[in-house]
Amino acid sequence: MSTTPAYDRLHATWNRLHHFGHLQSIAGWDQAANMPPKGMEARAAALSEMAALVHGIRTDPALKDLLARAEQEALDEMQRANLREMRREWRSANALPESLVTRREMATSRCEHAWRKQRPANDWAGFLPNLKAVLEIAREQAQRLADLGGGSRYEALMHEYEPGLTTAQVDRVFGEVRQWLPELTRKVLERQSTRRLIEPKGPFPVAAQRALCEQAMRLLGFDFEAGRLDVSSHPFCGGVPEDVRMTTRFREDDFLGSLMGTVHETGHGRYEQNLPREWLGQPIAQARSMALHESQSLSFEMQLGSHPGFVHRLAPLVQAAFGSQPAFDPQNLHRLMTRVKPGYIRVDADEVTYPAHIILRYEIERPLIEGEIEAEDVPALWDEKMQELLGIDTRGNFKDGPMQDVHWPESLFGYFPCYSLGAMYAAQWFAAMRREMPDLDARIGAGDLAAVFDWLRRNIWSQASRWTTDELAVRASGEPLNPAHFKAHLEARYLGD
Amino acid sequence: MSTTPAYDRLHATWNRLHHFGHLQSIAGWDQAANMPPKGMEARAAALSEMAALVHGIRTDPALKDLLARAEQEALDEMQRANLREMRREWRSANALPESLVTRREMATSRCEHAWRKQRPANDWAGFLPNLKAVLEIAREQAQRLADLGGGSRYEALMHEYEPGLTTAQVDRVFGEVRQWLPELTRKVLERQSTRRLIEPKGPFPVAAQRALCEQAMRLLGFDFEAGRLDVSSHPFCGGVPEDVRMTTRFREDDFLGSLMGTVHETGHGRYEQNLPREWLGQPIAQARSMALHESQSLSFEMQLGSHPGFVHRLAPLVQAAFGSQPAFDPQNLHRLMTRVKPGYIRVDADEVTYPAHIILRYEIERPLIEGEIEAEDVPALWDEKMQELLGIDTRGNFKDGPMQDVHWPESLFGYFPCYSLGAMYAAQWFAAMRREMPDLDARIGAGDLAAVFDWLRRNIWSQASRWTTDELAVRASGEPLNPAHFKAHLEARYLGD
Repeated sequence: MSTTPAYDRLHATWNRLHHFGHLQSIAGWDQAANMPPKGMEARAAALSEMAALVHGIRTDPALKDLLARAEQEALDEMQRANLREMRREWRSANALPESLVTRREMATSRCEHAWRKQRPANDWAGFLPNLKAVLEIAREQAQRLADLGGGSRYEALMHEYEPGLTTAQVDRVFGEVRQWLPELTRKVLERQSTRRLIEPKGPFPVAAQRALCEQAMRLLGFDFEAGRLDVSSHPFCGGVPEDVRMTTRFREDDFLGSLMGTVHETGHGRYEQNLPREWLGQPIAQARSMALHESQSLSFEMQLGSHPGFVHRLAPLVQAAFGSQPAFDPQNLHRLMTRVKPGYIRVDADEVTYPAHIILRYEIERPLIEGEIEAEDVPALWDEKMQELLGIDTRGNFKDGPMQDVHWPESLFGYFPCYSLGAMYAAQWFAAMRREMPDLDARIGAGDLAAVFDWLRRNIWSQASRWTTDELAVRASGEPLNPAHFKAHLEARYLGD
Repeated sequence: MSTTPAYDRLHATWNRLHHFGHLQSIAGWDQAANMPPKGMEARAAALSEMAALVHGIRTDPALKDLLARAEQEALDEMQRANLREMRREWRSANALPESLVTRREMATSRCEHAWRKQRPANDWAGFLPNLKAVLEIAREQAQRLADLGGGSRYEALMHEYEPGLTTAQVDRVFGEVRQWLPELTRKVLERQSTRRLIEPKGPFPVAAQRALCEQAMRLLGFDFEAGRLDVSSHPFCGGVPEDVRMTTRFREDDFLGSLMGTVHETGHGRYEQNLPREWLGQPIAQARSMALHESQSLSFEMQLGSHPGFVHRLAPLVQAAFGSQPAFDPQNLHRLMTRVKPGYIRVDADEVTYPAHIILRYEIERPLIEGEIEAEDVPALWDEKMQELLGIDTRGNFKDGPMQDVHWPESLFGYFPCYSLGAMYAAQWFAAMRREMPDLDARIGAGDLAAVFDWLRRNIWSQASRWTTDELAVRASGEPLNPAHFKAHLEARYLGD
């Protein structure tokens, strides 16, 4: 007879959820990568049936009692951490009444659907009422989550993506970055303005691009026995840990976009592929959070992929793929990868100006959710902050301004900070690696990436959700998130010798 | 308030099963077409979880009462037909106790696993005890199905694939064919022995083969907005009616195999794509049976695909794909497609000798299931019947004899007859078409296939499971299955002018 009967039942329930999640994930990937258009309605109906089933399991009233009884059982440390994550998931799934979930789905799908036409038409006036409807429901959702989990409304939303993250922490980190980023950007631009840059000449055949991307994935240790690369209009990393489905997209006139996008997704992919197998199916075996996931993709894309040593390894592959060109000289290739240019669009931003976009989103969506400002106030704030942070004029340009992302139409408030926190964690991981291995950059230049992967496996991948994010950061690097490492990284790469 | 509350609940239950079936089907297709090897364990666990869920819904004790109450409700004709199909599915799902299902799964998976090595080693002695174990359980399963549904043991197994089919009917049909087939085969061989045949010269690049297959699918009306063609090691037609996933496989030294295999699967695919949408999700909207499904694939592959008129349409596409060759002359191509050669292997058999393989399987597996013979008796019977039906000596060659198919290791007893019944129905459909449209062959020669598709859509596809197979055959062609049309087809094609 088990001495932990309540915990055992919870364990079995989460295993079941894991199996159903597998089918949801593969069907979702298939929808993006394979599904012909007329399959949409049937797929949506099937996935909605599955979502209802999973929701029913997560909101089964018996879970509340089981969670309480399991707390009293003699659990070991791992089981206790797993129970903590179960409770967190359970609270999130049970916080919202079904009527609110339905209203949110209706409002976001209406807003997003209209946005797809309103954005190209620069139609802020048409977009505004839909956004207001989404926002109203998001505030209600945030309030309910906050009532249960504590903290402010906006914190409650952030916790859906980054458990435990406080606005105090984000304020501190973004406040620091805000102080040095505009000046650093100015210096980098000045410096880059005089250097010579050779543009690559296309077209770059898709088959050669695909082969190049797969070679880069192999260099970066992606296990093709446990995953694939396919094409979708919005690249993502899906599937399941045992079978990671990465996607990219190809443009014949540009290969760097898909190459570096693939390097980025490979970071997500290796995190998933190396999550601990002995806990598979349980919450503790899942990736810790969105910021940590992004710290892996940006470790691959920015820390490693744009590392001058790694670019030396990549350059011969690029030449083999598309023939020799002056632009494919390693130094020039590295310059292309690290070109800084303030712009309107977040997803096109370089490593240096990217945080400005995120800080702006945070400084707008946080007061929006807290009810300190209204949706009508967004454009003026946007213009003001874009001028201040990036020195660009966005007045009247809504489509490349507050209408540029799908996040707000989809009510993903609280997600944006994870992107930049991920970049900062990535810099922090590499700073810790350099302390442990002073010859790290030489090793990368010699093509020896094993040390990097071992460090990430030991400190991040294998740890999954065993610790809180802060605990994990301290264990891995000796301190919680510290943006000084990100600053040092940018200075070394963009203002160093 | 609905006047048919019990029926309505059944309707909702089957819709739910349909949605879960969608995810099973797509995950199954993905497993065959995409999944990397290390994904296997997780996929099997996820699909097994889903199978348990679906089994639980199908065996919910409440269904028995609902089915009985629905019989008393005021249903229209379509609802009544749907209820008939629900009851049939329900009976089949509830006939076997869980312990028997588990034992069958263990026995078949052990037998099949060992067979994969025993077959190449020609190891009948090793295979025999596993086959006996599978057979013992199949007899028990057959007895239980027969107890519930009536008929003999073997009939009960056939009904899992072809509802309502009786051994009396199969005896009559195969008995007739048996009388004329050996002599007809002899005549065809004699006639073909003198004709000149030019072999195509490879290699045939895979990319060109794939493009050619897709062109053939387009000619045959496959809707690529509602389906795809991919590669798997065992070609099949999967997915769902709204999103049909066909697969094929390519060999560089032979293009006709994948081309005609694709034409075959396109018949299955169009049947699925054209099932009635207004009943989607209900049993009545499903393909009628395995023999009718095969009647569609063979209508495409044999009646249409190997029609001399159609080959004239195909020949220029073949030439465009691989360059000009004497072998690609339409007449020669047609001769290649209709070459008759008695052989050991059923799946490689031509249209004329194929039924001999099926009759042999039927004459062995039927007494096996009824307990009239034992597994030990199979090789001697096999040798005797192969000699009698095809004039070939199979003594001692178990691997190309009774060990050649996966069907017996997988306990698919009762399935084999559907293949040849499908070929006979296909001939019967085209005979009916010719009565309605005396210029049918001229139309096909002129590339006008719309009349064929319209006839199939009206008489087969749109009718789905509304009628029993016999009723459908009578409505479509004026009579139940009549093998005389198949004989006439073979005589016209192989012994005509």
